[in-house]
Amino acid sequence: MQILRLGPVGEERPAVRTDDGTTYDLLGLTPDIDGAFLAGDGVNRVREALKVGGLPAVEAEGVRIGPPLAGVGKIICIGLNYRDHAEETGADIPGEPVMFLKVPDTIVGPYDEVLVPRRSVKTDWEVELGVVIGRTARYLESEEDALACIGGYVLSHDVSEREFQIERGGTWDKGKNCETFNPLGPFLVPADEIADPQNLELRLWVNGELKQNSTTKNMIFPVVEIVRYLSQFIVLRPGDVINTGTPAGVALGQPEPKPYLRAGDVVELEIEGLGKQRQTFGQA
Amino acid sequence: MQILRLGPVGEERPAVRTDDGTTYDLLGLTPDIDGAFLAGDGVNRVREALKVGGLPAVEAEGVRIGPPLAGVGKIICIGLNYRDHAEETGADIPGEPVMFLKVPDTIVGPYDEVLVPRRSVKTDWEVELGVVIGRTARYLESEEDALACIGGYVLSHDVSEREFQIERGGTWDKGKNCETFNPLGPFLVPADEIADPQNLELRLWVNGELKQNSTTKNMIFPVVEIVRYLSQFIVLRPGDVINTGTPAGVALGQPEPKPYLRAGDVVELEIEGLGKQRQTFGQA
Repeated sequence: MQILRLGPVGEERPAVRTDDGTTYDLLGLTPDIDGAFLAGDGVNRVREALKVGGLPAVEAEGVRIGPPLAGVGKIICIGLNYRDHAEETGADIPGEPVMFLKVPDTIVGPYDEVLVPRRSVKTDWEVELGVVIGRTARYLESEEDALACIGGYVLSHDVSEREFQIERGGTWDKGKNCETFNPLGPFLVPADEIADPQNLELRLWVNGELKQNSTTKNMIFPVVEIVRYLSQFIVLRPGDVINTGTPAGVALGQPEPKPYLRAGDVVELEIEGLGKQRQTFGQA
Repeated sequence: MQILRLGPVGEERPAVRTDDGTTYDLLGLTPDIDGAFLAGDGVNRVREALKVGGLPAVEAEGVRIGPPLAGVGKIICIGLNYRDHAEETGADIPGEPVMFLKVPDTIVGPYDEVLVPRRSVKTDWEVELGVVIGRTARYLESEEDALACIGGYVLSHDVSEREFQIERGGTWDKGKNCETFNPLGPFLVPADEIADPQNLELRLWVNGELKQNSTTKNMIFPVVEIVRYLSQFIVLRPGDVINTGTPAGVALGQPEPKPYLRAGDVVELEIEGLGKQRQTFGQA
């Protein structure tokens, strides 16, 4: 089951696409796909409605796909969570998860334009598995408890500006929060439909050339440990998103001259079972 | 003019207190005090309504004062923005503003309980001038343009956990985002009623003992430069808050044993013209 949001920017309507490719409108069932939907057993209500045939089919062809979540409260990112990526950036392998933040108004749809910031010369890509929180998590004591707080999974693009992130003083946040820097989607998959979040292939291409090609098996800290760990420091609420880190293959890790992104470049990315994104970069 | 929100947690109503101490209800004028209120010329609409006598007076005595802003999209914090605080923490004086983030669901009211996190041994205080954005700011070119984007000022308590912030790997965010870590208020003052944001005294006491005592004159980067600078990296939107840094006198800067906060401690803080906060600390 793919949960998605269809329509122009700011006017997206909730929808669901079933295995046979049919798309159904969800506006009669929920005003939007958000924390309240996830916490309010929305996924099972959709399943029930599909079973009894109570949802109107809609034509999705040609309609913009927006980000599959509205009203995201926070995006927490895990840095250096793949050994090969930590090595390519020259960083030590972290002894505990490295956390930083991305503001939710960086979220755009999976096919929307992403803007290279003004005066940026080091805009970079990062394919990531996004975890969507479905239930409030606070001081979780076990990985089982953490698993119960995960509402779903989503493909997330943690676009990054390396000069802003590393060379401009202070924490990484300066290079992670530029406008349009978090394409999300195309759809959300409920947690119980992803058999093993630690066994998903993820890939990213720039202008058709494969740049990242790995699997979530290679994460240093698995998803459930990340959720358990973060809940010791910060309250995770329904609709919050965790970007779980990127594998090797980013521009920062390449030999000079590093192939940073410029306006006109096309980035495509995918995760097994979570769909594909495609962004043409523009100039802010 | 003091703009505030009165009532139980989650049920606050917008209000205004005038110079003569009378409080008026604003629910007939705006559903809440938020980005839409500030961007929609809300302050001048309140002034107009006060002038024509169109607002109902309310009894504020004994009613909880909530945070004066709802729906905050992001909290951006500036680190090490007072020379004496940078020195007391052993950090270099920054060459450009140090930025980090705080998630908005850390905001509580000015007299609400603040929780020492579980397993925390280094919970610390920081009195700060909060800047509230009133108009979208994106790649601002001058400090004049920055000034025009400021909607108001507010007293902000940037509560911090130093072990989580400094000793647990990665960026500072881990020690800045614990539950209840951003008391805000008691009220918002419109920007044009603060004659000079760089000439405000700020103070903080722990259990009655004066710990921080400085003035915003001592900021390394003034408010307008912070707003101009941040807008090069991140879009500032109406209702966003910027915590502009803290002066010397935090627990981290004291000789051993450093007097970190424990359940039962009482912290009071104030900024000239922006009111006073008082929190009794509890245990998460």
